[in-house]
Amino acid sequence: MHKVQRDQAHHLLKSKNINRALFAHPANVTWLTGFARPWRAGADLYAGGPALVWYDDGVFTLIVMDAQVAEAHDFAKQANCHVIGYQGYSYEEQPAGADLLASALNNLVGTSSKADIGIETRHLPHFLANTMRQSNLIPIDNWLTPFRSIRTPEELDKMRQNFALIKIGQEAAHDAVQVGNLELDVWYAIHQAMQQSAEKTLPLGNDCTVGRRMGGPALAVEILPDDSFIVDLSTQLHGYWSDSCVTYYATEPSAKQIKMHRTVADALDLAISLARPGAIAKDIDQTVRQFIIDAGYPSYPHHTGHGIGCIGHDAPRIVPHSNEVLQSGMVIMLEPGIYYPDETGVRLEHAVLITDDGAEILTQYDLNIP
Amino acid sequence: MHKVQRDQAHHLLKSKNINRALFAHPANVTWLTGFARPWRAGADLYAGGPALVWYDDGVFTLIVMDAQVAEAHDFAKQANCHVIGYQGYSYEEQPAGADLLASALNNLVGTSSKADIGIETRHLPHFLANTMRQSNLIPIDNWLTPFRSIRTPEELDKMRQNFALIKIGQEAAHDAVQVGNLELDVWYAIHQAMQQSAEKTLPLGNDCTVGRRMGGPALAVEILPDDSFIVDLSTQLHGYWSDSCVTYYATEPSAKQIKMHRTVADALDLAISLARPGAIAKDIDQTVRQFIIDAGYPSYPHHTGHGIGCIGHDAPRIVPHSNEVLQSGMVIMLEPGIYYPDETGVRLEHAVLITDDGAEILTQYDLNIP
Repeated sequence: MHKVQRDQAHHLLKSKNINRALFAHPANVTWLTGFARPWRAGADLYAGGPALVWYDDGVFTLIVMDAQVAEAHDFAKQANCHVIGYQGYSYEEQPAGADLLASALNNLVGTSSKADIGIETRHLPHFLANTMRQSNLIPIDNWLTPFRSIRTPEELDKMRQNFALIKIGQEAAHDAVQVGNLELDVWYAIHQAMQQSAEKTLPLGNDCTVGRRMGGPALAVEILPDDSFIVDLSTQLHGYWSDSCVTYYATEPSAKQIKMHRTVADALDLAISLARPGAIAKDIDQTVRQFIIDAGYPSYPHHTGHGIGCIGHDAPRIVPHSNEVLQSGMVIMLEPGIYYPDETGVRLEHAVLITDDGAEILTQYDLNIP
Repeated sequence: MHKVQRDQAHHLLKSKNINRALFAHPANVTWLTGFARPWRAGADLYAGGPALVWYDDGVFTLIVMDAQVAEAHDFAKQANCHVIGYQGYSYEEQPAGADLLASALNNLVGTSSKADIGIETRHLPHFLANTMRQSNLIPIDNWLTPFRSIRTPEELDKMRQNFALIKIGQEAAHDAVQVGNLELDVWYAIHQAMQQSAEKTLPLGNDCTVGRRMGGPALAVEILPDDSFIVDLSTQLHGYWSDSCVTYYATEPSAKQIKMHRTVADALDLAISLARPGAIAKDIDQTVRQFIIDAGYPSYPHHTGHGIGCIGHDAPRIVPHSNEVLQSGMVIMLEPGIYYPDETGVRLEHAVLITDDGAEILTQYDLNIP
């Protein structure tokens, strides 16, 4: 899996005369190998550091804790990708994950060479960089970011599975938004429905609040008759994140809410119509933001959208200052909103795949337009 | 809050002639300030790095992303502890968390001095260590670990609140373990009950499986009439982790399961009776492990116990090789078990506070002894 990505990284590094490199950004480790740290609450207690990918002249080696080797093999073991494990947990010996990880890395790097090594300085713990200090360490942070934005069919398949789960979560939210329920009750219903469908435990973000709170984690806040309700969901599947937002109502929405909701839906339609190869991110942001303002509403205090993949917010950013150019194969979220803090709010969001001549909507839920 | 801890760290560093230091281990950041990264699914997308604590001659400065400054102030702002924020998310400007974090750190460190700086090399990203490269960087990894094991009343109060939540989770599990339910159904019931009680979303670990699977995340595995069911729960509250384990039965346990369960309960009683100041960790491990073996069962393939606090498994480790000495004020988990893979299994766990003359059980749930 993910051989296309490794080939791209190889050609990039070769073109920059980097023959050896160490990747430490979790998004790049997943992008290069397909492997993602198995999701769980809290840290990997016995890991010596993050999962790493060592690159040496066209060959990639994924370095993970022993407990993750079997899963890593499923993803990463290929002609040009090896997997190395180091001992993490042990009750019979003193755990020494950090030392063993450093040692595994040293075995790969060797001591002979003073040649250049590219490193991701923002995600590589200092002690690991320090073991390579005889070499010339060259920062390669963000080098892969633009490549990471263009999806392969393999990645799209993972993301479509994830957006199908999100649809189930949004449908559960639709039913659970009822007067007298707490925000948390809606959260339980969503989380249960999605995990039931996935047949495993899942992480769940982002916002699940009455519209007057504009977003944030669910709390024991009771849904009142006049409330709109913002459900902005994301989860991680096969190392890829999803996102989504729909606004619901516990009772019939007011005339004001209906107008807001329809305006946001039109703004989202507009955004989708602008999303095509060659479009400039800031132009989309400006046009959609102005559409909301022209309809007589305040501008939303957040981005119009963002890329999504191995991390929840990835390039390109659909924001006022961004000159990024949309390209076929990108997956971006578009999410205009209208908010009156302490009163009510509406946000609607779709994921779209940029195609050769436009955009395909990946999120198949109902936008609940009144 | 946590002034006692800062004073301890100050005296330690002073005794080692370290006048300036940078802490990056999340457990130490919490221990020194009370601040913990607000829990959520996934990474802080706009953070420039982990939350850091800069120490300069008795004064501590917590460095966090702007979105966390208000919460950090609640915990950390004290006479000898300052809080500094840097901009994380922005839709109007290019986010530059890493650069802004490095810059905030540089302002504290200054450029004049070539003096020693203690750093936690395993958790400090290389680019931040690199900004201090004119100084003599001294590894101080694990220096705080032994201090972190002794609980202050303030920490104990946080941990007792957490164990009260865990009790609610275990009670929900007791009711949900029914023939025909899935492991995931038990998980939903636990998670919902705990979040309802906490009135907010919570992370949830560890094991929720039929005994024949010995542990692991809940899956869509149906509970059968002969199954035992292992529920090993942990969550994080106020930056502190809990832990716990009880074994349940969907129907009347078999004679074999009853004997196993009573043996494990006796082993846990034995472990608790041995937990007192001066006890050597490996002696407790050996005695409890031998008790299980002498009763005619296989030894359990894991530790007998572990400390707990700002991380889920902390010092001391109750394992065969550990010469760590228990001290008054430590909180340790004790968790013997008996397993027959693919058949059945029992694990029981309590948290105890080591007192001046023994141990106080902090986990107040029922061990479900048949």
